[in-house]
Amino acid sequence: MPQKKPWRTAISRFDDASVEIAGYKHEDLISKLDFTSMLFVLFQQRIPSPAEVRVLNAMMISVIDHSIVASSAVTRIVSASGVPLQASVAAGILTIGDIHGGAGQELSRRLEEWVAEAKAEGLALDKKATQIVKSLREKGERVEGYGHPLHPKGDARVDAVIAVAREVDLVGPHLQLALHISEAIEAASGKSLPLNIDGVVAALASDLGFNWRLGRAFIFIPRAAGLAAHAMEEATRERGWRKVATADDIEYDGPASRSMD
Amino acid sequence: MPQKKPWRTAISRFDDASVEIAGYKHEDLISKLDFTSMLFVLFQQRIPSPAEVRVLNAMMISVIDHSIVASSAVTRIVSASGVPLQASVAAGILTIGDIHGGAGQELSRRLEEWVAEAKAEGLALDKKATQIVKSLREKGERVEGYGHPLHPKGDARVDAVIAVAREVDLVGPHLQLALHISEAIEAASGKSLPLNIDGVVAALASDLGFNWRLGRAFIFIPRAAGLAAHAMEEATRERGWRKVATADDIEYDGPASRSMD
Amino acid sequence: MPQKKPWRTAISRFDDASVEIAGYKHEDLISKLDFTSMLFVLFQQRIPSPAEVRVLNAMMISVIDHSIVASSAVTRIVSASGVPLQASVAAGILTIGDIHGGAGQELSRRLEEWVAEAKAEGLALDKKATQIVKSLREKGERVEGYGHPLHPKGDARVDAVIAVAREVDLVGPHLQLALHISEAIEAASGKSLPLNIDGVVAALASDLGFNWRLGRAFIFIPRAAGLAAHAMEEATRERGWRKVATADDIEYDGPASRSMD
Amino acid sequence: MPQKKPWRTAISRFDDASVEIAGYKHEDLISKLDFTSMLFVLFQQRIPSPAEVRVLNAMMISVIDHSIVASSAVTRIVSASGVPLQASVAAGILTIGDIHGGAGQELSRRLEEWVAEAKAEGLALDKKATQIVKSLREKGERVEGYGHPLHPKGDARVDAVIAVAREVDLVGPHLQLALHISEAIEAASGKSLPLNIDGVVAALASDLGFNWRLGRAFIFIPRAAGLAAHAMEEATRERGWRKVATADDIEYDGPASRSMD
Repeated sequence: MPQKKPWRTAISRFDDASVEIAGYKHEDLISKLDFTSMLFVLFQQRIPSPAEVRVLNAMMISVIDHSIVASSAVTRIVSASGVPLQASVAAGILTIGDIHGGAGQELSRRLEEWVAEAKAEGLALDKKATQIVKSLREKGERVEGYGHPLHPKGDARVDAVIAVAREVDLVGPHLQLALHISEAIEAASGKSLPLNIDGVVAALASDLGFNWRLGRAFIFIPRAAGLAAHAMEEATRERGWRKVATADDIEYDGPASRSMD
Repeated sequence: MPQKKPWRTAISRFDDASVEIAGYKHEDLISKLDFTSMLFVLFQQRIPSPAEVRVLNAMMISVIDHSIVASSAVTRIVSASGVPLQASVAAGILTIGDIHGGAGQELSRRLEEWVAEAKAEGLALDKKATQIVKSLREKGERVEGYGHPLHPKGDARVDAVIAVAREVDLVGPHLQLALHISEAIEAASGKSLPLNIDGVVAALASDLGFNWRLGRAFIFIPRAAGLAAHAMEEATRERGWRKVATADDIEYDGPASRSMD
Repeated sequence: MPQKKPWRTAISRFDDASVEIAGYKHEDLISKLDFTSMLFVLFQQRIPSPAEVRVLNAMMISVIDHSIVASSAVTRIVSASGVPLQASVAAGILTIGDIHGGAGQELSRRLEEWVAEAKAEGLALDKKATQIVKSLREKGERVEGYGHPLHPKGDARVDAVIAVAREVDLVGPHLQLALHISEAIEAASGKSLPLNIDGVVAALASDLGFNWRLGRAFIFIPRAAGLAAHAMEEATRERGWRKVATADDIEYDGPASRSMD
Repeated sequence: MPQKKPWRTAISRFDDASVEIAGYKHEDLISKLDFTSMLFVLFQQRIPSPAEVRVLNAMMISVIDHSIVASSAVTRIVSASGVPLQASVAAGILTIGDIHGGAGQELSRRLEEWVAEAKAEGLALDKKATQIVKSLREKGERVEGYGHPLHPKGDARVDAVIAVAREVDLVGPHLQLALHISEAIEAASGKSLPLNIDGVVAALASDLGFNWRLGRAFIFIPRAAGLAAHAMEEATRERGWRKVATADDIEYDGPASRSMD
């Protein structure tokens, strides 16, 4: 019996002279595809349609940068400490955690479940949304992917991504249900809680056929570019070592001064 | 005098309702651009030509994945330890250091210098290459971006990227010089040392007008996608915690066994 | 009303001339304590007894290094890529995830629950262990912190840490229960499944009064030292860029070669 | 000829039943040493004297935490994003870069060079300091490890560490020279520029015989503990996702608003 090899992968293979990804010659992919199409090859082992590529482009551009927020603040502080570009960006990417990138991912997972349920129950998606919101409200649960602390009244980016998906007729059941849920929340509570940018990216990732476990990748791959811009700007335009907080910015509420004896 | 604001940036700005990148409304960028074009907006504050986008696509696809090598091995070991997707990918990105991504970056920096010198000296690029190689050999220095331990006889990916640049007539002085240097090395030493994939990406990044300090970003942005594929594959298809090395794989050459007394 | 300060902390405070941790003057802590005692000040806001310090020392030394395994392999591959010491170590620390460091942490959490139950039920810890193992076996669950793939027959480090805790009479209910569980597993299954090093560290962390949420910190703080040794060794004694796998080490089981058309 | 093993190390070795570090049985180290002594075994392959351990304890305690500054701000922002403890700490550790931890390390390297020169030149260390400061001033260079933006008038921690080293009579030539340099700067410029905490840790690391390349490890190993405290505090006491900056905190100075056409 042959010895088990230490590594196993279905993603790509190489020999001395060439590389193949998903069975395609790497040189053919280089010659014929754009980067966004390539993500379908990498994650779904298939060549996408132009409409699908257009939607994924819109999604990825929508999260490429948002000036200085959590992840870019982290990248800038690290960069200011005299750290190579990739390490500053890696620190920022760590910030795309369960709250944020992961929030969208959790929405993807639930939308896939709910869409499957609606289908099994023969329920229209707007009815399903009403049922979901009712059930969430009874349990006191909230659903991730709605509302944004920096864009309380709605977000032009979200509308633009949805418009692209509509234009190429690729609004599938996951985005439809996600939008119905927002309407159902407003109907039930009288309060507007629009789908946020993480939410729309998550819903469309499911409509495009990506595994929900990959959800946050569609945030951090494009954001890696935004973070690189921040890391370089901090390293080249600022003075080094960021103080971040002075004593005045910090409220201390720990043990009072005391002696060790 | 107004108080200095804690942060300063020229990349993007936002208010309650909208975001702008490089002065463009984020929603317009979402509607009209593809992701690769967006990198010109982010890093060069301009909308690129279709030819430029085609070349950057080829560059980014060429480094998106290479099965299990340094960075993806790191990502897989971290992922196998029960770590979220973004953290596994961040660990792999840390690997795009001075050797590797940084090697290409260093080549960019030198090519920009040499191209400027050639222009100032009125020297054709093939002559300049001969001069450079002579000087490097005298100093016993090597230049980064040539040769590949896994593809000793050349690399179909490199040829494919160059073919795309030729097809759209975007081989600029940096790639020209980089190729002449390889010829000059062969002429001087009798040994073939082809431009490697990091080298071709670096040379073309300079031809496309990107700051050489960003060099490794054109490796780690696409590679973030490849790493995400490896992280997910490891997490979903393997058994958890990678042993990596057994005692038999390790040669110990430290102090011999001894007592503490 | 005063404006809310951006940051709040109970850990430490500073002004222009001094720093206090847990209410103690930093200069007094420097003059009078050792590093291990300091971890009780930092995490429990109290000065420990010498016996407690002795046990925590044993725990931290026991996980400081284990030659080349998952975390140190990651650190070495990253270091070989031309990356600063702290970034190579950070990559290795990312590996102390839910499987491994987190496994011990999960054991801490459960031991605290079970010890509280035993107390409430008036049940001796050996009886509680029998009940726990019975229940786990019925549910087909396993408990983390037992068995080690590289030390299948037991581990001298585990015995040494337990011996130190016994010597200073600090084996508390969490370690007692953890050991009884191992005995109960053997009684029920006939198979020896000794407490592993993560498990003993976790149980003693609970006996010493540390919050179980900190569990993996007692792995990664000392391991940061071991990883620094590996990063420096790789950077100074090896040749740069680690190949890790050749094509022969990889079993590809993805799509077969195909054309894009 | 035997096949080359994939990994080589002089740090430690293991087999099925045991581990050795620097030739010592791991179980003996666990039984007999404290964690700080263990760092001499790991990094210098030797058992230290009690005086040496006392000095290294003082050094490590002095940098264990400093409330919310660069590295802990990074850890807190990452932790607030819903990220495991070790990943939040790893992000903070990335911040111990060339400015900061690396600054001390660079001072170590230079002190070792200068002490060797003084010895070769038969020059007293105070004279050497005068010569060094004169030369630095002529070249317009500054030396790292002096002055602190948050403690402009001196730092009680620095004095406390030096007092410990004096008490056990372990102020060696590196710390002596470092202190003479501060005096020489004041004599030449009339301005007080005291040795900062990174500087004193660096100078004493050299006096204790550690390789200067390890310099920043004596910052990030203890700081890993402080960062763990911040990560846990953020995760358990705050509300999740840190906004960091609002639009009001950011000065945008990039391209003005423009249309894409």
